[in-house]
Amino acid sequence: MMEREDVKRTLKLIPFEEAQRQLLKAACIKPLGHEETPVEDSLGRVLAVDIISSLNIPGEDRAVFDGYAVRSIDTQNASLKNPVYLKIVGKAFPGEPPSQISHGQAIYTACGAILPRGADAIIKVENTRQLGEEIEIRSPVMPGENIGRVGEDVKAGELLFRKGHVLRPQDIGLLAGMGLNLVKVFRRPRIGIISVGDELIKLSEKHPLRMANNYALIISSLISEFGGVPRIFGIVPDDLNQIKLRISEALKESEIVATIAGCSLGTKDLVPDAINALGNPGLVFHGIRLSPGKVSGAGVIDGKPIVMLPGHIVSAYAAFYLFLAPLIAQYYGLNVESIFPTVRAKISQDVKAKPISTFMRVHLTHSKNGLIAEPIHGGSGVLTTLVKSNGYTIVPSGKELKRGTDIKVILFSRYEFGHILQSKGIQNISED
Amino acid sequence: MMEREDVKRTLKLIPFEEAQRQLLKAACIKPLGHEETPVEDSLGRVLAVDIISSLNIPGEDRAVFDGYAVRSIDTQNASLKNPVYLKIVGKAFPGEPPSQISHGQAIYTACGAILPRGADAIIKVENTRQLGEEIEIRSPVMPGENIGRVGEDVKAGELLFRKGHVLRPQDIGLLAGMGLNLVKVFRRPRIGIISVGDELIKLSEKHPLRMANNYALIISSLISEFGGVPRIFGIVPDDLNQIKLRISEALKESEIVATIAGCSLGTKDLVPDAINALGNPGLVFHGIRLSPGKVSGAGVIDGKPIVMLPGHIVSAYAAFYLFLAPLIAQYYGLNVESIFPTVRAKISQDVKAKPISTFMRVHLTHSKNGLIAEPIHGGSGVLTTLVKSNGYTIVPSGKELKRGTDIKVILFSRYEFGHILQSKGIQNISED
Repeated sequence: MMEREDVKRTLKLIPFEEAQRQLLKAACIKPLGHEETPVEDSLGRVLAVDIISSLNIPGEDRAVFDGYAVRSIDTQNASLKNPVYLKIVGKAFPGEPPSQISHGQAIYTACGAILPRGADAIIKVENTRQLGEEIEIRSPVMPGENIGRVGEDVKAGELLFRKGHVLRPQDIGLLAGMGLNLVKVFRRPRIGIISVGDELIKLSEKHPLRMANNYALIISSLISEFGGVPRIFGIVPDDLNQIKLRISEALKESEIVATIAGCSLGTKDLVPDAINALGNPGLVFHGIRLSPGKVSGAGVIDGKPIVMLPGHIVSAYAAFYLFLAPLIAQYYGLNVESIFPTVRAKISQDVKAKPISTFMRVHLTHSKNGLIAEPIHGGSGVLTTLVKSNGYTIVPSGKELKRGTDIKVILFSRYEFGHILQSKGIQNISED
Repeated sequence: MMEREDVKRTLKLIPFEEAQRQLLKAACIKPLGHEETPVEDSLGRVLAVDIISSLNIPGEDRAVFDGYAVRSIDTQNASLKNPVYLKIVGKAFPGEPPSQISHGQAIYTACGAILPRGADAIIKVENTRQLGEEIEIRSPVMPGENIGRVGEDVKAGELLFRKGHVLRPQDIGLLAGMGLNLVKVFRRPRIGIISVGDELIKLSEKHPLRMANNYALIISSLISEFGGVPRIFGIVPDDLNQIKLRISEALKESEIVATIAGCSLGTKDLVPDAINALGNPGLVFHGIRLSPGKVSGAGVIDGKPIVMLPGHIVSAYAAFYLFLAPLIAQYYGLNVESIFPTVRAKISQDVKAKPISTFMRVHLTHSKNGLIAEPIHGGSGVLTTLVKSNGYTIVPSGKELKRGTDIKVILFSRYEFGHILQSKGIQNISED
């Protein structure tokens, strides 16, 4: 390798799958410990334990309609010509202890109330006539009719959720309904974000030549979306010692550190040197056979991964989805597939084979035949190509895609949904 | 209509589409006013104005690779046999004012730096050899090569986002990159939630017979998911005056009020009476031809809608998606389709025609041929049927669905995505 002062390094490009393996191997990530969180605040959190019900829901047989609790045998011979008359001996409402009926009796039982002892069916109120102290019944009711059985919803001892389950609104409702106040969830990995570059200024500042540190904001939002806790560790200039110091600081308070920029081939690209100088093993890989994203890399210090996101935003996206998001999943013990919102779509045009794998941006629209993915082209530093896209697909090197080919598209975030629907394809969807 | 003391009312069932129209007409909803929010906090918010760029991004022609800025004409005759030698006269980095070259000169130009005046191309560093104060060039470079042009990403005057756009991570990154600190978004509607029922207790309480108010928690989470600001106004017993009072209180501090339970036919179902007693027009509709969800209803007081969610959780879900979520969208001036995460799927089994339209719960799995929707059956009060489902479809009355029919499924929330992927269909998806 030729020594020259205008080139910092050459990269050894490896397939991104190989890079992923090397990174995971070097980092030895284990799911973080548990924490207990109030059920009310657990939306989107990942269960750290299996949840087994300790009780039946409902806990007693209950009326599922407003009606009269009866002994079904008493109604057995009821007909239009020979109605049966039962004596109304009380009312039962939800939350009240169960009452009791005997032969020839009925109790008004509101929906949700415990079935009175002695009764085995509810006759709907609209199938009766009220005549003073009695009800008239003109057709038989079957045993068990209109009753929600003990344990119909949940049985005591039933496995409700497995460890690793991401909690949705209905799930936290079920946990709360079981009387749980706290739930054991995995702690979320903290991810420190460091932006590198002499030219960067804070978002609140203005400068005619320097640039806003807006990429940190994007990466921070994506980290939250995929279950991490982002923390922005500000801007650091292109200075080896300052980069080293900032990474050390961030490592102390984070499970993962993400650097933005400073990892290319130029004379001021010092992040790889900083990582190597901080300890062992230092850099794990630098350079992947993927475009955009080629100068992505990662290292490990004290068992903690440092992901180098390239300074071009589309390349940074590639590194985010290929390296940073999988690490977050790993901290939860989850399969990375399970955190990505993935759809299948047909490609709108032929895509020529390329010598290097492509992180292909696509815009999605609905059609009668499912989703259509239109490739969005443009430089790797052009943020508006991401604004015009909804997700990406990886096109392997040498692979040609014919128009109409079915591809897997990973949406950039769950926020993309409304954006697909707003497109021209919406007519097809809302027609039916 | 027969008067009897054990039946509070009979319902006039109308199609849900008609109910939606009546509610929207009676409520006369207009999008709420704007508020300015820091760009950093605007993720998921809805733009209240069109965003037009006031500047070009990049503001100057820039190098998109590390290399040397040259006059392309100087390299025109460069070849392996007859290399061209240019004198290195300086270095240019991002954030610095532009430098200047003349004939026969080159400037080392880092990726992102402004193109030196006089230069019209960047030759990549790897396509040069450095020889002391000179670089050797062995092939010509074209005018414009490796340059990101002024306005390539964003042009001054360009419409970037339309009013009504829901902001994603890349969008807020673009706004921040344009130097915006504040952005005008629609205010979010506040939705007051009142749970009705003598039998209900707070989530923190325990009682052998009474029930946790867990449905309010579910509805509250769904409201947040669809862009509203929920506020739980607690539990109110089955008492007309207390229900009236609580609704009045909630109306004062909310754009919409949602009641849970107390709207069926029983003697203790007093919410419809409370709404009618509160003013005009009072109840707008009560009863829809849909199951579950039949006893859904809504009223309007002082122009504000009150949605009556039935006490059975599946019925409450139906009323949420059919009435409450569309109202939230309306407050943003959005089409309801644009807030629902919608997918298409093939039904896994024949579904018989029913005399009444069905709010059909479905569980989704991936397959080689797209998503498969399996109907989930069970009582309207069985919460676990929602836990086992990912979304719903409306099956019109009298319509039979043959196995394999393509249907539109609305996901309960964006959280459902991970849950589809965890199903057995995942193998098909991750194979390629």
